[in-house]
Order: sequence, then C-alpha cells, then structure tokens
Amino acid sequence: MNRQELIDLIYSRRSFLCVGLDVDKNKMPAHLKDEPDGVFLFNKAIIDATIDYAVAYKPNLAFYEAMGIEGLVQLKKTMDYLHSLSKPAFTIADAKRGDIGNTSQQYAKAFLDPAGDFNFDSLTVAPYMGADSVQPFTVFEGKWVILLALTSNKGAFDFQFLPVGNEQKLFEKVLQTAQQWGTPDNMMFVVGATKADMLTQVRAVAPRNFLLVPGVGAQGGSLEEVCKYGLTDECGLLVNSSRGIIYASNGADFAERAAEEARKLQQQMAAVL
Amino acid sequence: MNRQELIDLIYSRRSFLCVGLDVDKNKMPAHLKDEPDGVFLFNKAIIDATIDYAVAYKPNLAFYEAMGIEGLVQLKKTMDYLHSLSKPAFTIADAKRGDIGNTSQQYAKAFLDPAGDFNFDSLTVAPYMGADSVQPFTVFEGKWVILLALTSNKGAFDFQFLPVGNEQKLFEKVLQTAQQWGTPDNMMFVVGATKADMLTQVRAVAPRNFLLVPGVGAQGGSLEEVCKYGLTDECGLLVNSSRGIIYASNGADFAERAAEEARKLQQQMAAVL
Repeated sequence: MNRQELIDLIYSRRSFLCVGLDVDKNKMPAHLKDEPDGVFLFNKAIIDATIDYAVAYKPNLAFYEAMGIEGLVQLKKTMDYLHSLSKPAFTIADAKRGDIGNTSQQYAKAFLDPAGDFNFDSLTVAPYMGADSVQPFTVFEGKWVILLALTSNKGAFDFQFLPVGNEQKLFEKVLQTAQQWGTPDNMMFVVGATKADMLTQVRAVAPRNFLLVPGVGAQGGSLEEVCKYGLTDECGLLVNSSRGIIYASNGADFAERAAEEARKLQQQMAAVL
Repeated sequence: MNRQELIDLIYSRRSFLCVGLDVDKNKMPAHLKDEPDGVFLFNKAIIDATIDYAVAYKPNLAFYEAMGIEGLVQLKKTMDYLHSLSKPAFTIADAKRGDIGNTSQQYAKAFLDPAGDFNFDSLTVAPYMGADSVQPFTVFEGKWVILLALTSNKGAFDFQFLPVGNEQKLFEKVLQTAQQWGTPDNMMFVVGATKADMLTQVRAVAPRNFLLVPGVGAQGGSLEEVCKYGLTDECGLLVNSSRGIIYASNGADFAERAAEEARKLQQQMAAVL
C-alpha cells in the first residue's frame, strides 16, 4: 500500500487506528485456547469485529515465534485472511529486525516480498546497525520500513535520550540521519505515545513521515496528546492499541468488546481528522 | 551450556571457532538445492565436517525466515541434529531481536526455552530499547544474551561511534550500561573483527565477558588482530566465520572444503590458546 492509498484509506474510514495482534494463548478466551487454529480464529474474529474502525493490523512477531513453527503457520493464515478481504488494511510486521546489509536483504524478503509467505506492507526495524541494515527494506515498491526512533518503554531512557553533540539526542540523530535512507513514501518512524511531549522535536526533524505510535492504552499514552503534537495535514499518524482492544474481554464476547474499544478510539480519531 | 562448560569445551577442542550457518539456496551445491530437506542436509554435512574444529554454530535467522515457514522447519531439524550429537556445541540464534519487556519475554521463550522448538544456548539482541528489552533473555539458567556493541558493518559508523558525553562513545556506553543487566555468566557482546583495534576499549569496560566476533574472512577482519587485543586468560572469544567456511566450495566437495577452512582457523586458534 503506497502513501496516497494509505492516506485515502485513513480519510475514508475516518480512522488512523492500528490494532496490535499480540496473541498470547494465556489471555485468549477459553473456548479458543485449545482449538486447532485457535490463534487464527481469534485473529479472524478480531479483524472482522474491528475492520470498520481500523486501518492497520500489526502482528507482533514475538508472540507467534513463542509458539514455535505452529505460531508462524497461524500468522500466515492471518495474513492470507487479511489479503483476501475486500476491505483493505495496511499490515505491519512488528519484528524489530535489522542486521548487516546482506542479512537485512533476507529479512526484507521474508516479510515484504509479495511472493513470500507473509507479504506485509511494512516491517519495524531497529537503527543501531546503521544505513546498510535499514536500506534493504526500502526497495520493494509500495512497501515500508518503520524505524525505531523513540520507543514507549522505560528502557528508552537508557540510550535514546543520550546527548550526541550539537544539543541533539540520539533519537533525533536517528531521525535526522535516516532522512538520507528513505523518503516519506517508504519510511515511517516509531514514536511511543508515552513520550507524546517529544513529538514536537520529532516533527521538527521528520515533518512529513508517518509515525507509528504504540503505547496508547495499556502502556498509558494519551491519544489526545499524540494528536496535539503529531498530527499533520495528511494525518501522518498510525496509533496502535493492542491489549486494550484484543483483551478487552477474555470471555465469549471478546470480539464484541474489541469492536467497542476500537469504535471508541475511531470516534475520537474521526473528531480530530 | 554454562560458562565453565563453554571454557572447558574451548580448551579441550583447542578452538574458539563459531561456524555461521547462513544458508542461502542460491549458493548451495546444485545437488542439494532442490532436494527436500536440502537446507538441513547441507547444514548436517557442514556440522559433521567441522565439529572437531568448531565449538559453536550460529544459524542466522534471516536466511531461514527468507525461505518462509519451510525455512524454520529446516532450522528446527538442524537444531534437533545438533542436540542429538555426542559432541557438544554452543548454539547461537543470530536473530538481533529486542523489544519492550513483555515482548522480549516472548522472544526469549521462542529461542531459549528448553521446551521450545529450537532450544538455543544464546540469542543476539540489539540494545536500542534498553534494559527491559534485554533482561528477559538472562533468566534461563545456563543460557545467554549476546548484545550488539560494535558491529562489523559499515553502518556501525552511523551511530555506534557517536560521542555521548564524558569522552565515551555510544558502543562504550552500551557496554558499560549493560554491565548492570547481566554478568559474564549470562551476557556476551558482539564486537566485529573489522574493528579489532577497538577491542582494547571494549576490554577496558568488559574485561571478562565473552565476545562474539563476526567479520573474519568475507568481511575482512583479521584473526591475529582479534586475538592480540581480545583474548583473555579464559579465552573470552568466539570468532565466527560464515561464508568463508560454508561456501568454500559450491561443488560436491563443499563439506571437505569447509572442513579444511575450519581446520586452518582451528590450528591458528590452538596456537594462541
């Protein structure tokens, strides 16, 4: 999905909500836990319940890998289902990859290649290894790299805020340097909602890039704050909620409750668009 | 495998060689390329040919993921084979993972859990997200996190050498801060052989940690330099070679040629131990 298609989707659905598919069997409804294909059936129900309110889905690879090879089979079924729908959605492999150039090429193939098992629109990537670890993700037409800039966790304070000269912090240096590696048409940045007051600094360096904003909900970030400092005249935001939507209930009504939570966020988003 | 077992293995095999299993079908011998289980059979032949000269094997996850789910099946068969051997070897998932705490826990489960599909001894992790992204990998007894400090690629110069105050560079700050997250019994660091002259600075901050050193061979690093600056009285090094060993030949003699290349490195290593 290219930039214009994403923007059109956001304005037609009046939403910039991303639903994080962080499926943990321990938190799934009892009737699906031991079902063959239970993870896929859970995801399918969540997708069906939320697709009118969300523009993006973000499976977190760790949760699927923790289930072993079978987890990746469930992920493939989920992606096949998303690709089969008449209602489009932007897909994000939340995988935090990144390695030397020849290896990042392989990760790009694994996640973004239209001929591969998953065919995601985008992939999250860590910046520590620099240019050649990031650029291989920008070569697929209409596909995106989403580079970590400022993350939503406590550990973000260990390195991301370090001053690196010229009154710049490391995350600002990452944003600035990465401008040479991609464009607003193929590069987004992760900026945690728990650090929404930093969005002014982020927008100073990356005025047009889409930002993927995790941390609303369970991690305590505020949607209002994120919009105040991060919204652009092309929206420019994808705001993720995972646990707050998919585990709104762990009973038989989990999909209905997920729909309610997604709709609440969509209505707030419609109001600011 | 715990620290003492690893040290004993190194001195009994008189080697600190790690063989990187970066299997690319395009570089495999023709007779294995289209074979079912060809990737596993290739790895098995490489392992059989090199296990007397090597103490560790490092599958690079990207190369398996690029083959889709089938690639991970081949990886599982490779790990099952390594676990079945009477000759022990230290295993490294070169996966460059790392995410917020609850997600890193899932990655730890995916790769290190003895009950999981892979049961690696260790996993490479990127430091950008800080403490809670790294610590979940230190909880399994006898298992290790291998944190990126100074990588072997050109992109290492984008951020890793940035001055972060007190005349310290970012990679030194990573090494120093990480001392609070793990011990020499459960934490190693990646330090690229292409930057061997930096090993003095690394050893000043991390005198006892094992270092995983990629970049010897194809990437141009020198084993002699690495030993000169990195060796400790408990060895303290695992030196990786991937392409130089596994693709020494792409003919029917690939395993023999791999053995030769591994033996050459082992003999150099025996001489310095």
